[in-house]
Amino acid sequence: MVNRELIKKLSQLLRKDGVGALMVAPGPDMRFLLGNAPMMCERYQALYVTADEKVFYICNALYVDEITDLIPGEEVFGWFDSDDFTQVVKKVFEKYGLIGKKIAVNGAVRAFNLVRLMKNIDFQVENGKDYLELTRIIKTPEELENLRKSSQVVDKVFNDIVKFIKPGLTEKDIKTEIARLCVHYGGSNASGGIVAAGANAAMPHYMGGSAVIKENDVVEMDFGCTVGGMYSDITRTVFVGKATERQKMIYNLVLKANLAGEAAAVNGAYIPDVDAAARKVVEAEGFGPNFNHRLGHGIGYAGHEAPYIHGDYHMNLAPGMAFSCEPGIYIKDEIGIRIEDVVIINEKGETEILNKCTKELIEIV
Amino acid sequence: MVNRELIKKLSQLLRKDGVGALMVAPGPDMRFLLGNAPMMCERYQALYVTADEKVFYICNALYVDEITDLIPGEEVFGWFDSDDFTQVVKKVFEKYGLIGKKIAVNGAVRAFNLVRLMKNIDFQVENGKDYLELTRIIKTPEELENLRKSSQVVDKVFNDIVKFIKPGLTEKDIKTEIARLCVHYGGSNASGGIVAAGANAAMPHYMGGSAVIKENDVVEMDFGCTVGGMYSDITRTVFVGKATERQKMIYNLVLKANLAGEAAAVNGAYIPDVDAAARKVVEAEGFGPNFNHRLGHGIGYAGHEAPYIHGDYHMNLAPGMAFSCEPGIYIKDEIGIRIEDVVIINEKGETEILNKCTKELIEIV
Repeated sequence: MVNRELIKKLSQLLRKDGVGALMVAPGPDMRFLLGNAPMMCERYQALYVTADEKVFYICNALYVDEITDLIPGEEVFGWFDSDDFTQVVKKVFEKYGLIGKKIAVNGAVRAFNLVRLMKNIDFQVENGKDYLELTRIIKTPEELENLRKSSQVVDKVFNDIVKFIKPGLTEKDIKTEIARLCVHYGGSNASGGIVAAGANAAMPHYMGGSAVIKENDVVEMDFGCTVGGMYSDITRTVFVGKATERQKMIYNLVLKANLAGEAAAVNGAYIPDVDAAARKVVEAEGFGPNFNHRLGHGIGYAGHEAPYIHGDYHMNLAPGMAFSCEPGIYIKDEIGIRIEDVVIINEKGETEILNKCTKELIEIV
Repeated sequence: MVNRELIKKLSQLLRKDGVGALMVAPGPDMRFLLGNAPMMCERYQALYVTADEKVFYICNALYVDEITDLIPGEEVFGWFDSDDFTQVVKKVFEKYGLIGKKIAVNGAVRAFNLVRLMKNIDFQVENGKDYLELTRIIKTPEELENLRKSSQVVDKVFNDIVKFIKPGLTEKDIKTEIARLCVHYGGSNASGGIVAAGANAAMPHYMGGSAVIKENDVVEMDFGCTVGGMYSDITRTVFVGKATERQKMIYNLVLKANLAGEAAAVNGAYIPDVDAAARKVVEAEGFGPNFNHRLGHGIGYAGHEAPYIHGDYHMNLAPGMAFSCEPGIYIKDEIGIRIEDVVIINEKGETEILNKCTKELIEIV
């Protein structure tokens, strides 16, 4: 079902920028607008929202019935596998007066399909990734409540997984158990996330899984799931066996940075200052270059969405915003430590740290 | 590790088309070229292969160590979260002489990142989705063997899931069990696929999961996994309780179309003729409009890749090609039946149907 209030808001933004329509491929933006989204394969499909508040959809014939049920009363245009879909899109652009206009693309549109459209239709293309992310940057009370519930699920998962980890398991074994526990506690869309042991943890988005947990490894776990469509995202790093003095020093420095970031994340704070509050803790000890990413990202319908918490994101925190605080220190071939919570500025303007499970150094012995 | 033989082949194709470089984002194409691929988030990253056989990578700082390990000896350019990544890409384009050139984008590049590059750098954009798919359209003996093994896994899963299905389960329960069984039998990347009960099966890519299985429902299951990086893909549709005469008629018509497609899929066959062989069976009984998609798609490193089996794909089957044969009949609010096997033309030019589990009508009583 099309959310007419949102369409109105969005069309206003498009008119302000002189954009004729926003092209939205299936993904978090579409779930936000319609409450659901179909599967996406290589076949071109998109919902369009025009500057004059019209809504229509173009998709492969195999999706037409499903989309018609999703947006009752709106026009759905189908194309068949052996058709050139750009010719169907062209006719629809003619019908809606979009030829020659600025068309913005959301974050989910695939480049090769856009290029095919650009070759065959006269329009100007714009980056439209921000439109829907900014439209939902202030979460509703219901969305905030689901964010809390989603974080409660991953807290429970963490408390259980600590008892599960032992030498001899692979990273993948831990991922599989994390995914299972997320579902067990009521989460959806759980992938198991990132599990990195020992020096693998020095790669912040490490995607392997075959390493076997050994005594004296760190195990860094970064995972999430959804509850009521809202994502959680937590990172904890634990030690298998006793941590060395150097490992403890690095852990406690990351923890200090995490707490400094959260202390700075108050209603009205300028986002670059929040990033800097955590970063300067790490820099003061000479580990600045080892904290090689932003402090955090917004979270909600997508795992990563606005606001992005880094030095070049010029916005102030406001009630209803939800974002992660996740400093890390990564030392190639040695170690990686990251500690991440989701934080919200609630309806009263208070800062709430949604993850309650411990951040104290854990040694699994 | 960069596969130099493939780079040579690919660069030759780029030179032929006057393309300066191919931009490859993480996904099946990258796994084919490098043996692995990092995680992809909203941050821009791509491997570039130039027309003069050079290889380099541009990514966020957090991926630099991981990518350096993946492509030892090649240049890796990092950008930081608070940087404008397009300025880094621009400098690299200047260094490699790509300014003003044609740059092709593979199937995994995201449109909003491409638009940001187009706004800030002078280059011409081309659809490069086909380059790597065509480079791997003829599978090696090892890839064919992994395709066979991957199909054996889903055959076993199907044989087990038939015993699991009963009234009262949800579609999601069946998906979860399919995913578990795929892993149990040695598969990776198993999502549970599509499970559609009753009239939901009339939506070929139905993505729901909450419907409860009832007596007299069809249950359509379309799923796959990987073995050795090669995908499987199977669809079977079973009846819970006794099938009606009309249901039997539709089932047997789809089965006849599946067998006709497979009989036509011989070495040297013109692909549009293979699609037509199955389609005319369905059309002869007046169900043409209800078979609303192509007969099949190639399969291997990606679940869907070249060759695509439809009336506008002008190519002949050749030894080493692997593709699905999956006719379906979908009647809104009533029923959907699809029967899918993976088929290869083997090294000897013989047609092998990789899925051996039964296609006879199954009634779960």
